[in-house]
Amino acid sequence: MSDQDVDPLFEFLLRMGDNTLILGHRVSEWCGHAPVLEEDIALANTALDLIGQTQMWLGLAGEVEGQGRDADNLAFLRDVWDFRNLLLVEQPNGDFGQTLLRQFLFDAWHSIQLSHLINSKDTRVAAIAAKASKEATYHLERSSGTVVGLGDGTEESHTRMQSALNLLWPYVGEMFIGDVTDDALVKIGLAPDPASLRVEYDSVIGPVLKEATLAIPDSDFAQNGGRTGTRHSEHLGHILTQMQWLQRAYPGATW
Amino acid sequence: MSDQDVDPLFEFLLRMGDNTLILGHRVSEWCGHAPVLEEDIALANTALDLIGQTQMWLGLAGEVEGQGRDADNLAFLRDVWDFRNLLLVEQPNGDFGQTLLRQFLFDAWHSIQLSHLINSKDTRVAAIAAKASKEATYHLERSSGTVVGLGDGTEESHTRMQSALNLLWPYVGEMFIGDVTDDALVKIGLAPDPASLRVEYDSVIGPVLKEATLAIPDSDFAQNGGRTGTRHSEHLGHILTQMQWLQRAYPGATW
Repeated sequence: MSDQDVDPLFEFLLRMGDNTLILGHRVSEWCGHAPVLEEDIALANTALDLIGQTQMWLGLAGEVEGQGRDADNLAFLRDVWDFRNLLLVEQPNGDFGQTLLRQFLFDAWHSIQLSHLINSKDTRVAAIAAKASKEATYHLERSSGTVVGLGDGTEESHTRMQSALNLLWPYVGEMFIGDVTDDALVKIGLAPDPASLRVEYDSVIGPVLKEATLAIPDSDFAQNGGRTGTRHSEHLGHILTQMQWLQRAYPGATW
Repeated sequence: MSDQDVDPLFEFLLRMGDNTLILGHRVSEWCGHAPVLEEDIALANTALDLIGQTQMWLGLAGEVEGQGRDADNLAFLRDVWDFRNLLLVEQPNGDFGQTLLRQFLFDAWHSIQLSHLINSKDTRVAAIAAKASKEATYHLERSSGTVVGLGDGTEESHTRMQSALNLLWPYVGEMFIGDVTDDALVKIGLAPDPASLRVEYDSVIGPVLKEATLAIPDSDFAQNGGRTGTRHSEHLGHILTQMQWLQRAYPGATW
């Protein structure tokens, strides 16, 4: 498919919905396994929020596409190359600290992105953003608190959080790399230029990481290919085998 | 389905073929991840032997059933409740030592079972057993050697091997628990009574575990439900999502 064939709005909605779908699934993997009961329930609630947002983004994507696909169909019947999520959100959970650091790095971008989308020229996008924004703000509050607590905690927890930051930092840059789809969206006032959010992002994560006594790695190297769908990591395929199992084994199953 | 509806030969062939299929898949998970190159290749070869045996057992199962299902169909299009493998072989790999201990506990039973099946009244069964028996004997030699090497190795490796034995021991008993299917097979001289193999099994594993300085746990408690298909562990479903992904997502795919 050439760039001309892609509807920028459909593409944008997949990018938003696939982020929340894949991160929601990743976080749900903790269900019943978190270190303490309260965190277990908090993580499950975060996952539910994200899946709820997915329902809205992918639901609108299906409407916009106009080919009869609904949110379930888009979630369960596409293959790896049709997913448009950031590489960050498909990375493995690692330990509890690594999961929360990934969440923090995403939440910071997510809450900023949504705060801009509230003013989107597309009222449907603005409405979803308004609803999701409240949840994302709360997620960011929570993940920030945990990052500070564990980063500035014991020697063991600090070491683990610094390792997690070193591991995940190369996945941060992708959130701010735009393409022709973004150019088209900016032109019609539908969504902000990704690069324009970087200053705000740094001003949000900087103080939290500082309080957490964590050092931002020097390298600006950015993995990319997730949001454009050109190159996902091997992890996404494994997520899909689990996530899509039921609809693949029992197509059209209802209850 | 009542017991009367089950063809004992078909059931038996599933039990043999599902053991090698699921263990073969488990062992293949090590591919590219084993601690040293030679072990990596050895494990991959073991997995290939097991998958090759699966092709024979499930191929014959499909023939016996006479409903047009071949080995691929039986491997990729059945769901959890139709699998007849021992619970032992679906248990997670754990570390390298745990994987080899599981292999050893299976190989010992497998090589004994096959040595008896060589004399099966069913010549097709006898022919498969003759071919598989050579491979199983070699697998047992290899896994015995590793169990001794790691069990009677460093303090760390000994501790890990003893933990692995404690963990896996409750899955040994199932290999020797017969049911009406076995009764029917014994009656027609097709396969040995499972319980009758226990003495031989203990005489094989006893000396190896002794040389490995590993203590057999006191408990005789035996998990069961795998070979009868009445209760698999949660792990089998996860194996199937990965193993069956391609045929589920792209039914009938060929190349």
